[in-house]
Amino acid sequence: MRDLSQHLELLSLNTATVRKQAPLDRIIEAAVARGIRLIDPWRDQVQAIGLDKIARQLRDAGVRLSGYCRGGFYTALDAQGRAAALDDNRRAIDEAKALGSPCLVLVVGSLPGALSGKPQSINIALARSQVRDGIAASLDYARSVGMPLAIEPLHPMQAADRACVNTLEQALDLCGELDPGRTGVLGVALDAYHVWWDPKLATQIERAGAERLLAYHICDWLLPTRDLLNDRGMPGDGVIELRKLRGLVEATGFQGAVEIEIFSDAWWSRPMDEVLQVCISRFKSVA
Amino acid sequence: MRDLSQHLELLSLNTATVRKQAPLDRIIEAAVARGIRLIDPWRDQVQAIGLDKIARQLRDAGVRLSGYCRGGFYTALDAQGRAAALDDNRRAIDEAKALGSPCLVLVVGSLPGALSGKPQSINIALARSQVRDGIAASLDYARSVGMPLAIEPLHPMQAADRACVNTLEQALDLCGELDPGRTGVLGVALDAYHVWWDPKLATQIERAGAERLLAYHICDWLLPTRDLLNDRGMPGDGVIELRKLRGLVEATGFQGAVEIEIFSDAWWSRPMDEVLQVCISRFKSVA
Repeated sequence: MRDLSQHLELLSLNTATVRKQAPLDRIIEAAVARGIRLIDPWRDQVQAIGLDKIARQLRDAGVRLSGYCRGGFYTALDAQGRAAALDDNRRAIDEAKALGSPCLVLVVGSLPGALSGKPQSINIALARSQVRDGIAASLDYARSVGMPLAIEPLHPMQAADRACVNTLEQALDLCGELDPGRTGVLGVALDAYHVWWDPKLATQIERAGAERLLAYHICDWLLPTRDLLNDRGMPGDGVIELRKLRGLVEATGFQGAVEIEIFSDAWWSRPMDEVLQVCISRFKSVA
Repeated sequence: MRDLSQHLELLSLNTATVRKQAPLDRIIEAAVARGIRLIDPWRDQVQAIGLDKIARQLRDAGVRLSGYCRGGFYTALDAQGRAAALDDNRRAIDEAKALGSPCLVLVVGSLPGALSGKPQSINIALARSQVRDGIAASLDYARSVGMPLAIEPLHPMQAADRACVNTLEQALDLCGELDPGRTGVLGVALDAYHVWWDPKLATQIERAGAERLLAYHICDWLLPTRDLLNDRGMPGDGVIELRKLRGLVEATGFQGAVEIEIFSDAWWSRPMDEVLQVCISRFKSVA
């Protein structure tokens, strides 16, 4: 296993971690000041500043991306809605390309309307089939421009509203179906928070192999967890065996970054510099 | 599929659904007054009145059990703690027997101390191995007195604190290992709330078959869900395809009760009689 305490260059900051504290340009400045050279920004954060401006800032600062968040949300009640989703995913792929990202992370979506609390359908099998078709369509374009897509299985507690792909096995089944040749254009974003509980995790990580593991995200599962979305913990504050999990990931030959992504009302309420400092310290000691 | 609107005798009331409104003896009276003839009581509710008293009340009223909640919580840091858990499970089996229950439901436990927010270990593989050993030990006694054990896979969001068995597949793997002959002494309690999201649900229900399906519980998944434990919905108020799910369950030949079990601060704050009335109405119209 790699000794992270000596390799800060392997830390990536998912910029949602400090999204409430500052706009993206200032987050990048603060990350650089702390020695962080990898980030994974969100589309809305990029758009708020402007794609060209962020691309230039990244180049000038020597900061690269470990991923780009996010494409997906493929499901819709009507064909028009699904076509609009495909268009939007094409734009996300173009942005990822412009920023030099190694992949576009996909949060695939689920029951149409569920995110706003008003599901228009409760047919999850239908959602899953629309997601399959959506990824297949995006994949043609992704392949043509050389931008790998990373399906992120989300925790089952987000199965209704955010993603109907909920286990690594399910994500890998999709990869196997849509990219049987393991060409590198389709894989998974493995987030410890979403998958740590899975009794089949070790065997499925081995099945994925390094070619399918396009991103590795961490945070921690708190006890108690008070919110289904925004109560994630700083690595080391919860019950996920992060070191063991990274061992499984690296045993495949994975050489990528370890990305810290924390959605947390508690951490969003603390000064950005303090949060970055704790991220670096936990990256070195517990990740 | 059975037409539930004509078969109120197939409705079972899990008495946790109205646990905040009244003690068990009054819950039984209220259920009988509404025509409900099946219940699944919790051990603490029985103990608060007394086992003999409840057994007599049930006999006199012609009320039977569809299950008894609950055994389990097998994990502990030391051998003494695990032995105490086995003793407690033996007592639970005896109580289930005294009440004439068709099975004892097992919430198997997970990281020791996690339920009180102070995990003493985060080794979930170890917890899973202790759970396996614990069920194996309970099974010997359960077999000797003829009381089937129903492993309840719990939603992955409760993997740290309540149960490290989190999918139907995992529960059935345990059943296969510990009772390969499918003797009827080991099976699962399938709760829609815990398993509805699972992409392998249909194939695993078929794999279970009627011999392994010892109980079928329902409620609903609300959008948004505001609490990981006590924000379950009344059937029909959420996104679980209950009719489709029951179709899968009954396709195995399952002839058992449909048990309503709702942990909900919202429903606990309403009058017991209103809750029972709504349960009956939803049982007939959406279950």
